[in-house]
Amino acid sequence: MKKRLKSWQGWLLFVCAMIVIFLLGLLSSSINQRHAEVASIYNNKKVDLKKQESRNELFNVNYPREYETWDATKESGFNTEYNGNDAKDVLAMRPNMVILWAGYSFSKEYNTPRGHMHALEDNRAILRTGAPNVTLGKEPMPATCWTCKGPDVPRLMDSIGIAQFYGQKWSDLGSEIVNPVGCSDCHDTKTMDLRISRPALVEAFARRGKDITKSSFQEMRSLVCAQCHVEYYFKGKGNYLTLPWDKGFTVEDIEKYYDEIDFADFTNKLSRARIIKAQHPGYETWKMGIHGQRGVSCADCHMPYISEGGVKFSDHHVQSPLANINRTCQTCHRESEETLREDVYKRQRKVDEARTSLESELAKAHIEAKFAWDKGANENQMAPALKLIRQSQWRWDFAVASHGASFHAPQEIQRILSGGLERAVKARLSISKVLAKLGYTDDVILPDISSKAKAQKYIGLDMDQLNKDKAEFKKTVIPQWLKKARENGRLAKN
Amino acid sequence: MKKRLKSWQGWLLFVCAMIVIFLLGLLSSSINQRHAEVASIYNNKKVDLKKQESRNELFNVNYPREYETWDATKESGFNTEYNGNDAKDVLAMRPNMVILWAGYSFSKEYNTPRGHMHALEDNRAILRTGAPNVTLGKEPMPATCWTCKGPDVPRLMDSIGIAQFYGQKWSDLGSEIVNPVGCSDCHDTKTMDLRISRPALVEAFARRGKDITKSSFQEMRSLVCAQCHVEYYFKGKGNYLTLPWDKGFTVEDIEKYYDEIDFADFTNKLSRARIIKAQHPGYETWKMGIHGQRGVSCADCHMPYISEGGVKFSDHHVQSPLANINRTCQTCHRESEETLREDVYKRQRKVDEARTSLESELAKAHIEAKFAWDKGANENQMAPALKLIRQSQWRWDFAVASHGASFHAPQEIQRILSGGLERAVKARLSISKVLAKLGYTDDVILPDISSKAKAQKYIGLDMDQLNKDKAEFKKTVIPQWLKKARENGRLAKN
Repeated sequence: MKKRLKSWQGWLLFVCAMIVIFLLGLLSSSINQRHAEVASIYNNKKVDLKKQESRNELFNVNYPREYETWDATKESGFNTEYNGNDAKDVLAMRPNMVILWAGYSFSKEYNTPRGHMHALEDNRAILRTGAPNVTLGKEPMPATCWTCKGPDVPRLMDSIGIAQFYGQKWSDLGSEIVNPVGCSDCHDTKTMDLRISRPALVEAFARRGKDITKSSFQEMRSLVCAQCHVEYYFKGKGNYLTLPWDKGFTVEDIEKYYDEIDFADFTNKLSRARIIKAQHPGYETWKMGIHGQRGVSCADCHMPYISEGGVKFSDHHVQSPLANINRTCQTCHRESEETLREDVYKRQRKVDEARTSLESELAKAHIEAKFAWDKGANENQMAPALKLIRQSQWRWDFAVASHGASFHAPQEIQRILSGGLERAVKARLSISKVLAKLGYTDDVILPDISSKAKAQKYIGLDMDQLNKDKAEFKKTVIPQWLKKARENGRLAKN
Repeated sequence: MKKRLKSWQGWLLFVCAMIVIFLLGLLSSSINQRHAEVASIYNNKKVDLKKQESRNELFNVNYPREYETWDATKESGFNTEYNGNDAKDVLAMRPNMVILWAGYSFSKEYNTPRGHMHALEDNRAILRTGAPNVTLGKEPMPATCWTCKGPDVPRLMDSIGIAQFYGQKWSDLGSEIVNPVGCSDCHDTKTMDLRISRPALVEAFARRGKDITKSSFQEMRSLVCAQCHVEYYFKGKGNYLTLPWDKGFTVEDIEKYYDEIDFADFTNKLSRARIIKAQHPGYETWKMGIHGQRGVSCADCHMPYISEGGVKFSDHHVQSPLANINRTCQTCHRESEETLREDVYKRQRKVDEARTSLESELAKAHIEAKFAWDKGANENQMAPALKLIRQSQWRWDFAVASHGASFHAPQEIQRILSGGLERAVKARLSISKVLAKLGYTDDVILPDISSKAKAQKYIGLDMDQLNKDKAEFKKTVIPQWLKKARENGRLAKN
């Protein structure tokens, strides 16, 4: 009896052990499958890509998840309380900006940003790039204007040289720059490691004594964005793209840099003030806000991770974090979506208030300066006001042009706008004293600039002609460019 | 053999069990002791306190930990990067403020805040309360000025009535208000529950339809502070202390309230602008910042918990949270002390920049307005500038007077200062146009107000006489008050 029991127990133990081992095997297989799924992406690439492959569509086969989400950028605008998904005509919403940019191409057309997928077509279609080959002899932009528009740029820089790239006219490269911001702008095509493909960023940090080619992965998750989302200018006759960070990253540091080299992007047609046009100092303002200071990268909020099967990947549908609060803010913050969204809007509303005041005062300053010139003011009399206008507009533009600054660094932006507003009203005070000396003591009668059309007419733009030329350019020149690109194998699709 | 072993094993088991039970007993006793320690504080009070006991020292016997830490407030200033522990002469650091308050007692003396323990002596000693019984017939302040200075106030209100309290002169109560901000200001003396002892706060919330006597414990940990650290004014001839919150808590809401009742605290002697003096809207600005919005109470940061033996109690040494970063900020934030302190200073520096500009522009506006009056400007001409000065100074004071606002709500304070700065320069612009119409087109020559003494002389203050009278008041009147208080049993010590 004792022996039979022992044998029966032994068999039971054996069967149980077998079942457990079988289940462990299943689990192990599942884990390995997940690993294999990840590994296969990198080890079993279906297509071998060229070092400077610029045709985004070719990456789809190897990296379908990233490609699919990148493709969705055609749907993304940057939502705020004020604008939805579609690009909005900012000049129509804020006609004062036409006055601020009088004599500069931004006064012709300026829209809210859209997704990466539209970078190229919007650059070609906007009035700012003009209508070369239509309006003969008039070529408003250098090739440098293409620099951020897609992976054809590093390909071309690699083949013809960096300075040679910048040194051309915009229209010279119309059939070469044909793929919008995409894969190889930020990735090494062989390893898919993050890479800096634009030399200006590396050069700027090198001048500050920092070699960013040795950055950590987390740093790279912001630096790849900083290739384009920064303040920059076109240096010298060769229009060499340069980031003005030699003295630091604040609005005052950069202003000092520009002042020392006596730089201006344009002279305002009304006030004759020499103006610095801020580009989009997104990286700089992110650094000044709490998220940047706590090491939260651009990608953490704008390209949150997604898990799909065994794969965790970055969402390449770069957009406002408010579109995915559950995957962005709520990774760290426990508040409700509604609370977090309202927190963002509250900050934006406060900034918007100062921005609107500043725009209005600065537009008046430009117009009143023109009035003083017309009354016979001389350069000595006008110099203090023109300096204040330059400083004011630099602050306004730095705060406004950077995408998302009002949330990235709310207090800093509020500080900057406060300084800009102070200087705009001080410019008006200075002009008022000049006018008094010239015997004019009444208020300056301001023109009706209550709509974009009225403001553009006031600054002397012939919008009908500009629109007509651009339409002709779109109809005739762009198709030629694309045809040539197709013939040269620059595009994936035919 | 089998039987003997069993018996031995049984004894071993028995002894082990005894030891374990003994140790459990010790542990249980220790836990109970800790509970007993807490319970004993409330159940075995050594002294039975009167309902409106105002002598703080009497609480020491029952609540030694709270008393001891409260007593330490005699050491606390509110540290910023700019001032250390001692009270600093703000007018000496910022002589422009003398101009802003020309014609008002704040131009005589204004210091950085000190701990609760000094509330009363500082109120008696400051030039603002004057020298009643010395400068005969000159009584600058009503009894309402005592309202926040200590627990004698609720005691008196309880015995003579609220309106009757406010209705007297300041000097009438000199021998009654003799214990500084202390225990029964915030605690029910029987239960030690938090209590609102000042009627103005309850009345203000009641007018907004909220009964704060039903607040949660966590709400009370801010509301007891809000009894005093708020914006208020003295209403009507009876100087009834009133919080102007009927329209809301923002700087614009409160301004609208004051404008509708055409209220002014004083008329600036230079510009003749009717000015609202902001008190210290700490509670309002805390509500507008992220800590307030996330439910962090005043006490969480200014009175952090301490564990001592079995007792966890609130540190009654109310002071800057920067003095105890490990017990305050680091309860939630994982960054180093150095990083957290620098984060606070960064915010304060940005605000300080706008504050300094605003003070400078506003002082000029007051002086230039006086110049315009002197040149013969009339009231119609000056009205727009005076309105702008009123609005500007209200914003300046709201942002500056509130302790800690630059950290409590950095962006909101920056927004408020920006609006104030805009209005100060616009006031100057308006005055400049008035002057031009009057035929004066040069710059107004500004007086030398580079020191407190120079600024006070410029606005016509006879500081020697004021200081002399105050010294006499301190030497003769205050000792009489204290003698009488002692005789009447108002003080614990003799």
